[in-house]
Amino acid sequence: MPTSRIEAFSDGVFAIVITLLILTIQVPQLPGREPGPALAAALRSMVPKFLSYALSFAIACVWWVAHHHLFALLTKSDRGLLWLNSLFLFWLASVPFPTALLGDYPRERLAVLCYGAVMMMAGVSFCLMRFYAFYIGKLTAPGLDRKLLERAMIKSALNPSLHLIAMVLVFVNTTAALALYAAIPILFFVPTRLEHYTRSKPG
Amino acid sequence: MPTSRIEAFSDGVFAIVITLLILTIQVPQLPGREPGPALAAALRSMVPKFLSYALSFAIACVWWVAHHHLFALLTKSDRGLLWLNSLFLFWLASVPFPTALLGDYPRERLAVLCYGAVMMMAGVSFCLMRFYAFYIGKLTAPGLDRKLLERAMIKSALNPSLHLIAMVLVFVNTTAALALYAAIPILFFVPTRLEHYTRSKPG
Amino acid sequence: MPTSRIEAFSDGVFAIVITLLILTIQVPQLPGREPGPALAAALRSMVPKFLSYALSFAIACVWWVAHHHLFALLTKSDRGLLWLNSLFLFWLASVPFPTALLGDYPRERLAVLCYGAVMMMAGVSFCLMRFYAFYIGKLTAPGLDRKLLERAMIKSALNPSLHLIAMVLVFVNTTAALALYAAIPILFFVPTRLEHYTRSKPG
Amino acid sequence: MPTSRIEAFSDGVFAIVITLLILTIQVPQLPGREPGPALAAALRSMVPKFLSYALSFAIACVWWVAHHHLFALLTKSDRGLLWLNSLFLFWLASVPFPTALLGDYPRERLAVLCYGAVMMMAGVSFCLMRFYAFYIGKLTAPGLDRKLLERAMIKSALNPSLHLIAMVLVFVNTTAALALYAAIPILFFVPTRLEHYTRSKPG
Repeated sequence: MPTSRIEAFSDGVFAIVITLLILTIQVPQLPGREPGPALAAALRSMVPKFLSYALSFAIACVWWVAHHHLFALLTKSDRGLLWLNSLFLFWLASVPFPTALLGDYPRERLAVLCYGAVMMMAGVSFCLMRFYAFYIGKLTAPGLDRKLLERAMIKSALNPSLHLIAMVLVFVNTTAALALYAAIPILFFVPTRLEHYTRSKPG
Repeated sequence: MPTSRIEAFSDGVFAIVITLLILTIQVPQLPGREPGPALAAALRSMVPKFLSYALSFAIACVWWVAHHHLFALLTKSDRGLLWLNSLFLFWLASVPFPTALLGDYPRERLAVLCYGAVMMMAGVSFCLMRFYAFYIGKLTAPGLDRKLLERAMIKSALNPSLHLIAMVLVFVNTTAALALYAAIPILFFVPTRLEHYTRSKPG
Repeated sequence: MPTSRIEAFSDGVFAIVITLLILTIQVPQLPGREPGPALAAALRSMVPKFLSYALSFAIACVWWVAHHHLFALLTKSDRGLLWLNSLFLFWLASVPFPTALLGDYPRERLAVLCYGAVMMMAGVSFCLMRFYAFYIGKLTAPGLDRKLLERAMIKSALNPSLHLIAMVLVFVNTTAALALYAAIPILFFVPTRLEHYTRSKPG
Repeated sequence: MPTSRIEAFSDGVFAIVITLLILTIQVPQLPGREPGPALAAALRSMVPKFLSYALSFAIACVWWVAHHHLFALLTKSDRGLLWLNSLFLFWLASVPFPTALLGDYPRERLAVLCYGAVMMMAGVSFCLMRFYAFYIGKLTAPGLDRKLLERAMIKSALNPSLHLIAMVLVFVNTTAALALYAAIPILFFVPTRLEHYTRSKPG
């Protein structure tokens, strides 16, 4: 089975998730067509919703890039990869719910925890998929440097670990936990050597 | 007509359905931004929604794989296949409604019946499509082993039959019916010989 | 500009529209988790919603096939085709609104009229696109039989004409108008000679 | 990295956004199944919603064409382009919110401002992406005429500038601002020389 179909399917899910996220933000229903300052107040109170929307959008984009970098290394796919990818897509497709929950209850410990938990589960399933593809299914090109694979594995494991730390932080300070959530995607902007390798491959 | 277009279109519908399912779960609207234990209680009462979401997601993924395995065997398509595929997509696209219904009324006989009925109809239309492609439209590669086709037919017929049995079970015990619903997708994880054949074909 | 991109984009819109349609049907919110006969009554009263959903789904599938048959005849695209296709997609993407309106007010003259009007506008814009592609943009393969093009033109013009007739019928009898709406897609199941031609072309 | 994947992903987001826009218009919930003149009155009061829906649809289609014209000039992509494209998609995916806001409060200064602001941000990010691709990432074909690139740059910069002017106009007269919003997409119908160039390239 070539990887192209799983990739196209996953790309579809990514594109739909990032576009559906906006539906988590409803226009405030105020009396009259010109509510004046009440509308400004209502929109101001929705700032947490806008922020959680923007954060989930950024996280999904980062996952999209990570997903492509992983699949660029694979030369084939199998049933194991297919099901692990479906598991990853399950957590990815679930993102609008914790996003809306965090937007509605930004200071409620449980909402912040739920957000982190879904993101951590996405990270864990991505990690499992990478581990399976690299070491169990052996789906990578044969000539790949083992050290590069290890480094990619560690970076992938770092993501759910940081989310776990952020979830522990929730019990100390929810604002600090949220700051860590926002900091994690930035980590992924720094390209690793493995990604350099995939970029230098002929397209 | 090549099959690639029907496949791409169907893949789009699959990707959208699994991503839209999350919209069946709304964030509970409680007074205040920090509702405390009320939020935990509200989320706990939503467990049936989360479960029906996860079940529908798993079923749709299993259908996606089955759809691909069927189309991997076909060398061409015709108008009959097109309309039968549209019929299958109709039932697939309808899945969010019974999913939400079951999530809202998990112990209500009628809701459990509706869920099974839509899943059975998806199975019946998939079965019809497979039967048409194999024996009426003769759209498969000429060299295919008849026995493998028969085995695939039987497995496809098993799916709606089991849903029918589960629907009868609803009148005895809704929990047992729900357990059978959840068990059916697991059946499809076991690859048949036919699927081995399609996997060993050059991609 | 090759036609493949417009086709892929339109296919995306088609797939999304048919999958979004189900969101026009909301689960009835009744008190308690086991509302018993109240749920059956609520679902029975929703039959018009299910029917308008199924009708719109069928119409969209018929449009999808017609769209492909048109584009199979074109060898190139230009800016005019692009904008006329966007106009067609505008009316197609609007379908969920009149579908929900008809589902909520199935006997209300205005709702039946709105449904017909949106479908007629889709038909008119499809007709314009076909006319432009055949006679103004001259985007078809050079060897095509003019008679076949004319017959396709007539069939395309028939669709909005029938919807116009159905809309006039609304003022006499809404049920008759609805029956005509449902009969129109069936017309398109009968393949014309032109479609035979496109099917016999190598894929 | 070839540009095809970013294009396919962006096309997906475009297709989803234009199809999701209709969800910003809800069917009016009136008592009874035959509300008679109350339905006509309710639909008439929804005219601003239909207009803001149509305007956003037109703007998204214009962006889709502009996006393709830009990518037709690029021979490769890099990480910078990827993130700037994601930023553009963020503003594009956000469009349903200001569309619904403007539909609900068409005469409220703040709603008109928000609509313009999101459109301007989409324009700014598109401009940044074009600037990066042309002058920083140097992702265009080597033989391209610098003058044509400059003209495309200017046209791209014109879009957010006009939106900024429209936003200032809001404080004078909201109707004039809305008229300018509607006029901006028309600007993009006039093809520039650069676009002629990309169209004359072999597909």
